[in-house]
Order: sequence, then structure tokens, then C-alpha cells
Amino acid sequence: MPYFDAASGAPLHPVARQALTASLDEGWADPARLYREGRRARLLLDAAREAAAEAVGCRADELVFTSSGTSAVHSGIAGALAGRRRTGHHLIVSAVEHSSVLHAAEVHRAGGGAVTEVAVDRTGAVSPAGYADALRPDTALACLQSANHEVGTVQPVAGVAEVCRAAGVPLLVDAAQSLGWGPVEGDWSLLAASAHKWGGPPGAGLLVVRKGVRFAPQGPRDERESGRAAGFENLPAIVAAAASLRAVRAEAAEEAVRLRELTERIRARVPRLVPDVEVVGDPQRRLPGTVTFSCLYVDGETLLHELDRAGFSVSSGSSCTSGTLTPSHVLKAMGVLSEGNIRLSLPTGTREEDVERFLSVLPEVVSGVREKLGAPVAAGPVPTEEKNEALVVDALGRRCPIPVIELARVIDGVPPGGTVRVLADDEAARLDIPAWCEMRGQEYVGEEPADRGTAYVVRRTG
Amino acid sequence: MPYFDAASGAPLHPVARQALTASLDEGWADPARLYREGRRARLLLDAAREAAAEAVGCRADELVFTSSGTSAVHSGIAGALAGRRRTGHHLIVSAVEHSSVLHAAEVHRAGGGAVTEVAVDRTGAVSPAGYADALRPDTALACLQSANHEVGTVQPVAGVAEVCRAAGVPLLVDAAQSLGWGPVEGDWSLLAASAHKWGGPPGAGLLVVRKGVRFAPQGPRDERESGRAAGFENLPAIVAAAASLRAVRAEAAEEAVRLRELTERIRARVPRLVPDVEVVGDPQRRLPGTVTFSCLYVDGETLLHELDRAGFSVSSGSSCTSGTLTPSHVLKAMGVLSEGNIRLSLPTGTREEDVERFLSVLPEVVSGVREKLGAPVAAGPVPTEEKNEALVVDALGRRCPIPVIELARVIDGVPPGGTVRVLADDEAARLDIPAWCEMRGQEYVGEEPADRGTAYVVRRTG
Repeated sequence: MPYFDAASGAPLHPVARQALTASLDEGWADPARLYREGRRARLLLDAAREAAAEAVGCRADELVFTSSGTSAVHSGIAGALAGRRRTGHHLIVSAVEHSSVLHAAEVHRAGGGAVTEVAVDRTGAVSPAGYADALRPDTALACLQSANHEVGTVQPVAGVAEVCRAAGVPLLVDAAQSLGWGPVEGDWSLLAASAHKWGGPPGAGLLVVRKGVRFAPQGPRDERESGRAAGFENLPAIVAAAASLRAVRAEAAEEAVRLRELTERIRARVPRLVPDVEVVGDPQRRLPGTVTFSCLYVDGETLLHELDRAGFSVSSGSSCTSGTLTPSHVLKAMGVLSEGNIRLSLPTGTREEDVERFLSVLPEVVSGVREKLGAPVAAGPVPTEEKNEALVVDALGRRCPIPVIELARVIDGVPPGGTVRVLADDEAARLDIPAWCEMRGQEYVGEEPADRGTAYVVRRTG
Repeated sequence: MPYFDAASGAPLHPVARQALTASLDEGWADPARLYREGRRARLLLDAAREAAAEAVGCRADELVFTSSGTSAVHSGIAGALAGRRRTGHHLIVSAVEHSSVLHAAEVHRAGGGAVTEVAVDRTGAVSPAGYADALRPDTALACLQSANHEVGTVQPVAGVAEVCRAAGVPLLVDAAQSLGWGPVEGDWSLLAASAHKWGGPPGAGLLVVRKGVRFAPQGPRDERESGRAAGFENLPAIVAAAASLRAVRAEAAEEAVRLRELTERIRARVPRLVPDVEVVGDPQRRLPGTVTFSCLYVDGETLLHELDRAGFSVSSGSSCTSGTLTPSHVLKAMGVLSEGNIRLSLPTGTREEDVERFLSVLPEVVSGVREKLGAPVAAGPVPTEEKNEALVVDALGRRCPIPVIELARVIDGVPPGGTVRVLADDEAARLDIPAWCEMRGQEYVGEEPADRGTAYVVRRTG
């Protein structure tokens, strides 16, 4: 049963499993204690720190283990902001950061701080120039992911780090998605990562603070992990995290080539196999195992469900798939279609035949969902049902992708140059109607407030 | 090799090990995901929550899993204080709480809050009356441990909860030391605990917030665990925590009787085997496996070291044993001797012969340390070296237990009614000189500032 959601959490690497079970026996005691069980635990902890530091490319005393990637991000941002509070209270993040970074930014804003979100292009990438523009004399910290978790786009960390360095501003890199593939390039100041993203166990993250970076840990003090991660060390998880990072790194170069070929195949073939699909993210600068695309006239939840029934575990950035009704902030920031969104993130060891089977199953699954929803068939015009002159599609109360489907159904009945107003109150329409226009070569005029919801105005160009 | 430090962390219970390794295969995926691996993880998480809630005696939706006991305490205190910020900013803690509670109180104080520390008696127990006196109209929260981690004294939680309930103030119980033995009595409002204290794995704690208790989680928001514990769930640890809690509870009644007999034996025999020993903590209301005593004229660090060489892993609340130069705040609050302090906390399954061997080894170990330090022999007066009229012992720059040893060496040269001034700058002297006077039936007059350090004045009574 193929699991294609490594970006959420990778299955445990065999080395992680082995290290974890071994250190359950050797590493349960308190490493702060002086007796032999404590000393043994301390040795394991020190060795794990050395190994992880070597893989990250930092000094062992710059690295602490946290209880998760999220807690590494939260502690890192809070500590770096507090360490530079005399400089100011301005924080820079990209618009496509992981929610853990954006939620930390929210807290900073709620506490009176200022936050600038750096925009991304249509591939999901920021530019060093975007960070340069955002920097201010009171900027305390900038944050940038090494690669995007939803679309796989690799960010220009080295360039952004250079710009930040020149301004004397530390850069915190969320390396959750890329650390298993290799060290983060460039002259960054802080780094956070999560073991279960690289095949390590849950319960371990890491936070690196380069020497010389001002850092003031927040929250109640605790003598463990240099005061940067409170609570009894989860030593079995730490040992397994370090061991598996070394192990996945040893396989990374070869596996990257193999997975890149598989995702390239998906990128190339999905648009040929399935009509009305947009593959998103940077085609070149991207993670080896991640590929994301969106399917017009499909709702993500049903698509996930049908793929699960067909045996494939994937993720989606569509609305209605994560307990919220808003589409992924990443897709939104990129300005790309969010409906029928699917992210495949292949774990190491993914078999070619599973990818092939996915490609053979996908077209039918998508067309099945479209049929159920009454989506327009790709070929041939759809007869317009409503023929009144001021063409209005009332999709109020209808969830994505219905507003777009309704728009597609009527567009052929609109004379060239004529407009159609789609009334919708689903947040996803704000993203998906312009994206549909771009895909279909129609003109998106803009949105207008309506009595209820919003009116999205589209002009037929051809 | 007997390990007698279960209060720091217990070796993994076999059930915990089994549950942990089993759920490495079944529980690595994200329980928030809709595909089968996610659903399987969710089932495991729900079952663990049900099991833990049953053991605690609460509803499953009142309990969240955290990454450690420390983080449960930190989140619980911060959330409860914030939830009642309209009532006021007054926090009550006992003077003998675990450092995680006291550090959370420090942060509260640093942020402008008020903190009252409730004193304990010489056994280490608070009284409900002490909490009643501390309650104010602006009290937002009170905290009390279920049992003390250093001396094993069981606190009157039910009585304190009643007093708090009557005042409308929630009581947070740190149940770290006792939850493996049974549910916490009384009508408490919040509860925190740590799995590795009951034989569960590191990396899992739990926080219970009773329905109706105002609670506002602090820190960046996160949708996991009802928003009360950020970060990817450490499911293998959670499953192992719940399974082992059930397992140790099933054995608790019988094992409590057995361990209580062993610790009773230690309490009774140590003072007979070793001269100048004070056994501390409540002789009746105490944890089954914990016993603590202090040895005059001995330094904790050497004692730990020698016991380790003899094969025994124990802990100490003496200064110089935990990286700080101040004695345990618990012994300080109790006003008992801190030098040569040893805590034994027997893990379940401790063998009688190991306890007997400890008792047979201890006298020699203690007398060896005393000899090295030149401590006065218990029997017979020690000739005074300094015979000048204004008797001053200069122990400046000397670490505990030297100031007390010097005092004991000269006391017999002091005429009845005469005084001796001990000059010392080791913090432990402030606690140990009065404790020595109490043990020896000499009068402790008080302390006076000196040019360097402090002068502790003792009057010879007989």
C-alpha cells in the first residue's frame, strides 16, 4: 500500500528503529546524573550531538535537541527575537513558511511586534531582493524555509542569508523538509529541523544557534540542553534521530537521483493523462521526492478519499481537507489553483511500480470525481443553462470546486468580450477563479463586494 | 548493579518497551491525516488517551499528551494563569515544588505577577491552612505536588483542593511522583505528570484540565492536542506511556506494600548503623519507594561517588551535586540538614538483597568519607586547636561540610554558655549549622554579616 506523504512524516528508517530500541536499554537514565547509568546516558547524548552537528555542519555546542521540529521553531524564533529586542521588534518571514513559523509570527504580532511577509513568485520561491526590501533598521530576525513543504520548491537560502548578513540580521532557516538530503547552504544563523521528516522517530527536533548569535531562551528556565529546550531529554529518540540522519545522508545522493526521476515522470505525465491539471512548484529547484498538482473541477477531500480507497496515501492543500475551509496559504501565496490539489512526497525507497500504478489509477479517479460533481467535459462547449443578458452565476453556499464548475459551464454561452459574475462565499473561489482564468486564457476582471459573499467578474476573451 | 534513583527516571517497564516498539510500526504517521496510516495512528492515539484518562480518573477530552512532564507543568501553569487573568495575577505554590513549577513561577513573577510560597513543616508537608492563608481575591491559580520528589512526603492534596475550591481558585497538581501508585485524591482542577517517572518512556507527559476550568493555551497556536501541546504527536511514546501506566497500576498495591517495607527498613536501620544521621520526610505519609537521609560531616558529592563505586546509583540534595553550589530548596524549606544527603528511590522490582547490601556497605562508605575530611569521631571530645578567648572558626572559602566539621571540632573547647562564631561563605552553611545545632542540642543564636561571608553564632548549651 504505497504511502506518498513523507513530507508529513516518513516511516521510521530501519537504522532509527534499531538505534531507538537499543537506547531504550542504555539511555533511559538522566544524563545529568553522576552515577554510571547517567554517565552512559550522557555519553549517548554527547555522541548523538556530535553526529547531528556533523550532519548539519555546525559545532556540537551550537546544537540542542528539542521535543519536535515545531518546538525547535517556536523556541528558536522566540529566543532570537528576545536576544535582539534592543535592536527592534521587526520579524521577516516568507509567505509560504510552515504553520509553526507563521503561528510564532502571529504571537509576535499579538505581543506588539511587527511582521513582514515576503511574497513568493508563482513557483513558490522568494528572492533575495524580496528580503532586502523587507529589511529595516529595527529588524530583529528573518526566517526562511530551506524548501517548501507543500510544493517542494527550494528557496535561495544562501542569497537571502547574504542579504541578511550584510544588514546584520540573523536568518533562521526551517530546514525540516531538506535536512535529510544535505546540509543547508549559505551563511545562516539559526536552523530548526524535525527528525520524523527524515525517517527519524517522532519526539525529536533540533535547534542550532550559531556562536555569536544573540539568543535569550524564553519560557521557564531549565538547565537541560543549554537552557534552550526544557524537559527530560528524550534520549532514545535523540539517538535514533542522529543515527538515522547519518544513515539517510549516506543514501541521499543516489536516492535523490532516483526519486527526482520518479517525480519528474509524474510532473510530465500527469498533465498528459488528466485534462485541466496545473503542476505547481519550481520544475528545477525542488526537493527530489515532492510533486504537487491541482485538478480543475475536483474537490480535494473526495480526491483524497478516492485515492485512499485505491491504496494511495497522499496529502492535499485544498480547502475542506485539513479541518479548515480555507485553501493552503502556500497555494494562495503562489496564486495557483487550489482545487483538487494533491501533494505526493515520496519516501526514500519508493518503488517505481507504485508510482506507475498511481499514474495508471489517477485519470479514472479524477474523472470519476468530476463526473459526480457534474464538471464540464474538457472537450466541446457546454450548453449554458442560464441565458439572461446580465450573466450571473449564483454559487452562494456552494463549496469549492462548484463555483468554478458553474463558471466553466456558462462561459461558452457568453459572447466574446462579455462578462460573467460568479457570486460565491467559499474562500477558495478567491484563489481558484483567477487561477481558472489563467489556465483557460480568460480575463479575470476582479472581485466586487456583493449583498452576500463576493462577486468575481470574468470576461470572455475568446 | 542496583539503581535506586527511580524518582529521577525509572527504567523502562517491559510493557512500555513492548508497546513502544509495536507502535513504531503502526503509529508513525500523522494522526491528523485522513488516509489509512493516519487513521490507524488516530485510533492508537484515541485508545491511549482513553486508557490514560481512566487511570487518572478524568474524561478523555480533559487529557492531552505533552512532550514531557516539564512541558505539561509549564503549559498547565501558563494556560491556567492566562485563563484567569481577569481575576488577578496571584499564584500560589508550595516551597517544595519541583523546579519546573518554581521556574514557571519565576517567569510569572518576572512578568509582573505575584507569587506566594507556602511554607512546609519539618517533614516537608504543607497544610490546607497554609494555602487558606495564602489565598487572595486576586489568586488565579494554586499549585501543589501530590508527593515530594526529594523526601517522598505525601501532600494533603484533598484538603488543599477543598480550600481552593471554596475560594473558587483552581488547583494544579504536579502528580509526577505519585501517578504510578494511584489516582490523585481530591477535587483538583489541573494535573500534570511524566511517563518516565512511572516506567514509561521519555518524551511523554500528560496534562489534564478539568471541564469548566478556564484555560487559555499560551505560545504559538497549534491545532494538535486541543491546542494545548504543540508539535507532532510522539505516538510511540504516548502509546507506551498509557500502556505502562495501566501495567504499573495493576502491580501497584502489592508492590507498594513490598517497597514500603524495604524503605521502612532503611529508615529504621540507617540511624542505627551510621552515627550522626538525620532521616528526613514524613515517616507515615510518604511514597512507598522513597527514603532520604543526611549524614553529618560528609559531602554529598564524595558520598555519591563512593556509593557509585560500590555499585549503587542514588541521588543527593546536597550542594555541589547538581552543578549548583546551593543545597536543595526542599531541604532548605524543611530546615533540615543538607550535608551528606542521600535520596534512595527504589524502582518497582527492587530486590531485598540489594537493599540489604546497601545497608551493609553504607556505614563503611560514610566513615571513609568522614575520615578523609577529618570529621570528629562521634564518641569522645575532640581537643580544640584554637584556644583564644573570642572563639572564631574561619571556614571562609571552604565548602560544605567543612564549616560544620570545624564547628564540631571546637565545640567541646567552648565553656558551657560560651559562643563560637563560624565564618563561612558556602550557602549550605546557612542550612547546615542550625541543623547541626538541632541535632546536637546546641543553641543556634543566629547569623551576622561579616567582612567576608557570614558569621554563624552558636552557643554551647551543655
